[in-house]
Amino acid sequence: MSAMVSQSKDDVAAVMQELGSAAKQAARALATATPDQKNLALTAAADQLRVSKDAILKANKQDIEAGKAKGMTAAFLDRLTLDDERIDAIADGLRAIAELDDPVGKTIATIERPNGLKIDRVRTPLGVIGVIFESRPNVTADAGALCLKSGNAVILRGGSDSYHSSRAIHEALQFGLEKAGLPKTAIQLVPTTDRAAVGEMLKGLSGNIDVIVPRGGKSLVARVQEEARVPVFSHLEGICHVYVDKSADLEMAEQIVLNAKMRRTGICGAAETLLVHRDVADVLVPQLCAALAAKGCAIRGDDAVRALYADAAPASEEDWSTEYLDAILSVKIVGDTAEAIAHVQRYSSGHTEAIIAEDDQSVDAFFAQVDSAIVMHNASTQFADGGEFGMGAEIGIATGKMHARGPVGVEQLTSFKYLVHGTGQTRP
Amino acid sequence: MSAMVSQSKDDVAAVMQELGSAAKQAARALATATPDQKNLALTAAADQLRVSKDAILKANKQDIEAGKAKGMTAAFLDRLTLDDERIDAIADGLRAIAELDDPVGKTIATIERPNGLKIDRVRTPLGVIGVIFESRPNVTADAGALCLKSGNAVILRGGSDSYHSSRAIHEALQFGLEKAGLPKTAIQLVPTTDRAAVGEMLKGLSGNIDVIVPRGGKSLVARVQEEARVPVFSHLEGICHVYVDKSADLEMAEQIVLNAKMRRTGICGAAETLLVHRDVADVLVPQLCAALAAKGCAIRGDDAVRALYADAAPASEEDWSTEYLDAILSVKIVGDTAEAIAHVQRYSSGHTEAIIAEDDQSVDAFFAQVDSAIVMHNASTQFADGGEFGMGAEIGIATGKMHARGPVGVEQLTSFKYLVHGTGQTRP
Repeated sequence: MSAMVSQSKDDVAAVMQELGSAAKQAARALATATPDQKNLALTAAADQLRVSKDAILKANKQDIEAGKAKGMTAAFLDRLTLDDERIDAIADGLRAIAELDDPVGKTIATIERPNGLKIDRVRTPLGVIGVIFESRPNVTADAGALCLKSGNAVILRGGSDSYHSSRAIHEALQFGLEKAGLPKTAIQLVPTTDRAAVGEMLKGLSGNIDVIVPRGGKSLVARVQEEARVPVFSHLEGICHVYVDKSADLEMAEQIVLNAKMRRTGICGAAETLLVHRDVADVLVPQLCAALAAKGCAIRGDDAVRALYADAAPASEEDWSTEYLDAILSVKIVGDTAEAIAHVQRYSSGHTEAIIAEDDQSVDAFFAQVDSAIVMHNASTQFADGGEFGMGAEIGIATGKMHARGPVGVEQLTSFKYLVHGTGQTRP
Repeated sequence: MSAMVSQSKDDVAAVMQELGSAAKQAARALATATPDQKNLALTAAADQLRVSKDAILKANKQDIEAGKAKGMTAAFLDRLTLDDERIDAIADGLRAIAELDDPVGKTIATIERPNGLKIDRVRTPLGVIGVIFESRPNVTADAGALCLKSGNAVILRGGSDSYHSSRAIHEALQFGLEKAGLPKTAIQLVPTTDRAAVGEMLKGLSGNIDVIVPRGGKSLVARVQEEARVPVFSHLEGICHVYVDKSADLEMAEQIVLNAKMRRTGICGAAETLLVHRDVADVLVPQLCAALAAKGCAIRGDDAVRALYADAAPASEEDWSTEYLDAILSVKIVGDTAEAIAHVQRYSSGHTEAIIAEDDQSVDAFFAQVDSAIVMHNASTQFADGGEFGMGAEIGIATGKMHARGPVGVEQLTSFKYLVHGTGQTRP
C-alpha cells in the first residue's frame, strides 16, 4: 500500500474510479439487505475487533511513532492513540448501532387520496456516501457502521496520520460484511494517503458518490466548498454562543457557562462566545470570569467586560468569529436580547446557541430569530450530540440546512421514495 | 429595463449581487412573518392579478408578438399565451396556496430525554431560493407563492420569451407583499434577460442563495450540473417506464398505458417506455400498440415487438434514454421482472415508474429495487403531481435524493431546527 503513495495523479484517479463503481454496485445490494444481515455484519465486526486487538494496536503504534517523529502535539497523539479500552469502546459502538431501529423501508407518512390511491412515503438509503475525516481512527468504525446500518455503501478517506490504524479497523469491518454475506465493497477505505484522492471524491467519481460528509478543520472545509461537485453535509465549525439574559437565574447561568465552555473544550459544541445582558453584567461578569479563570480559562472581552474584570485580554474583531476549541472564551456585553440575537446572526456558524433566561418573551425571540441547527434554553451547549439527542450515534453535526441538520444519525443518512398503491386508476 | 439587456457582464453581476443581499435581508423578515401576513400577501396578489388583467394581457401580447416574429412553434406560443381564464386560474392558484397549512414553526418530532431535556424539531424556512424557469409565465406566480408560503425569499429568473408577462404578474405579487407589510424584495424577478444572470445565480450570489430550483430542458440541466456551487433541487427529465408483468390484468394494463402515455404527452410524468413480459406479449402488444396508434402514438420497438406489431419503427439505443414529451412510445419485451427492473435501473431518470401486476412478489421486487422518486403499482404515471399527491401545489418534481424528492411542495421548501427546552441541565 505504501507504494501507492508515490503513484501518479492518474493512477490515483483510476484507483478512485474503481472504488466508486464498486461502491455503487455494493449500494444496490445493501439497499435490499435485511436488517438481520446488516446487524450480523456489525456484531461480527465488533467481535473481530476484539480478536484482532494485537494487530490493531501494532498498526496504531506505527502511526503513533510516525506522529512522534513528526513532532505532533500531545493532544494530537492522544486523539490518535488506541488502547485496550478504546478498542472495546469502538466494538461497543458497533453493537449499539446494530441495536438501533433499522431506518430503511420504514413508512414515514401515508397519504390516502379520494380516488383510492394510497401513497406511502418510505425511507430509502441515499446510495454511496463519501466520508473525509482526519486523525481519529475510531471514525473508521463509527462512520462505516452508520452508513451500513442506513443501507449505504461508504468510501472512507481517513487522515494519513492514522492510516495504519484505520486499515486495521477496516479489516475487521470487512470481516463482518463477509460473514453476513454482504459485499466487502460496502465499506471501502481509500488505499492511499495521496491528497489527490480527496479531490477525486469531491468530484463525485463519475456520479457514483451521492453525498460527501467532510469532518475536519478550516482547510478541509475550504477545499470542500471550492471543489465539491456533489451534495455535502457540511460539518463546519461550532462557534457556539451562550447569551445570559437579564431575566436569567444567575446561579444557573454560571453553572451552564462553566459546563458549556470547560467540560470539554475541544468538541464542536463547546461555547466560544458569552454574551451578557448589561443589567446583570455587574454581578455576573466578575464572578463568572473568575470562576472560569480558576478552571484555567482565558477571557477575551470587549471594553465593558474589561472594565468589570481586569484580567480579561482585549477581544479583537477576529475573536468573535474564532472557534478556539481551547480554554479561551470571548465575552461581550449587550444592551438587550435583540442585540444578542444580532450578534449571533452575524458571527454564528449555525451550530448551537443557548439562551439562559426566565423571561418567555426573550426565549421566544431567541428561538424564533436564531437560525442555528440547535437552539437551547437553560441548557449547556455541550448537549449538542447525537447520543444526547437519543439518536444512538452520529457521523457529525451538520451546520447546513439541506437534508440533514444538527446531529447526523442513521435517519439523516436516508432519503425516501413514494410507493403508490393503485387498483387500476387512470388520471382524468 | 430593456436597456439592461445590453449591459456588460460586470453590470449584471452587480445587479445580481444586490438582488442577493436584498433577498437575504427579506428572508430574515419572512422567517418570522405570521401565517396571516403571508396569506394576506397571497390573497391581495390574487385580487390584484384580476384588477390588472388588462395590463397583464397587454404585456403578454408583447411576448407573443416577439415569439411569433421569432417563428416559435404553436405549442410554444400556447404555453406562453395568457387569457382571462388563465389569469383567473393563476389567481385561484394563489388563493389555494394561501389556504394550505403553514409549514413554518410546525413541530415535526419531539424527543424527551431522561435528563429532562425536551427537544422539539420544528420546521424553518430554507432562506433564499433561486428559481430558474423557462417560458410559462404562470410559474412566476406559482413559484413565488410557494416560496412565500414556506417563509422563503425567492429570486425568480424566467425565460426571456415570457419576460414582459412575468414582470406584469410579478407586479401583482409585490403589490400583495406591500399590502401585507412584508418586504417587496421577498419576491424578486431578475430585471434582465441576460443569460449571465443565470451564471451568477448558480454561483450563489456570495452565499446569499441557499438552494436553486431549475425547471427546464436538457441544456439548462447540463448548465446547472456544470456551474452550480449551491445545492440544487434537480427537476430533471422524466423518462418514465410502465412495466406490464405476466400476472397483469391486461384490460387494466391497456387502460393505464393509454393514459400514462396519451392523456398529456408533454408533462414529465408521461410514460416514455413500455416494458412487457414475454408471456403476455403475444396478446397485449398487437392490441395495445394498435390502440395507441389509433390515438396518434408512434411506436418504436425492439425486434420482438416488431415481430408482433409490424407498424413499429425500430428502437435505437438512444430511444431507451429519450424523454420524447410527444406521442411516441418505445416498447421492449423482457423475460422477467428482474430484466424489467434492470432496464429501469439503467435508463430511468429517477422520476416515476409503474408496474402493472397482480402478483405480489413481482410488485414487492419492483418496489424494493426500483429507486425512483415515485414507484407505482396499478396506476398511471400521470398521477406524478403535487396536486394529485394532496400537497396542494408544487414547484416541480425533484429527481435527486437530497432533501426534496418527488413533488416539491411547501413542506419540501423548508428545513428544520432543534429547539431544546432545559431547566438548567449541564452535561456530566
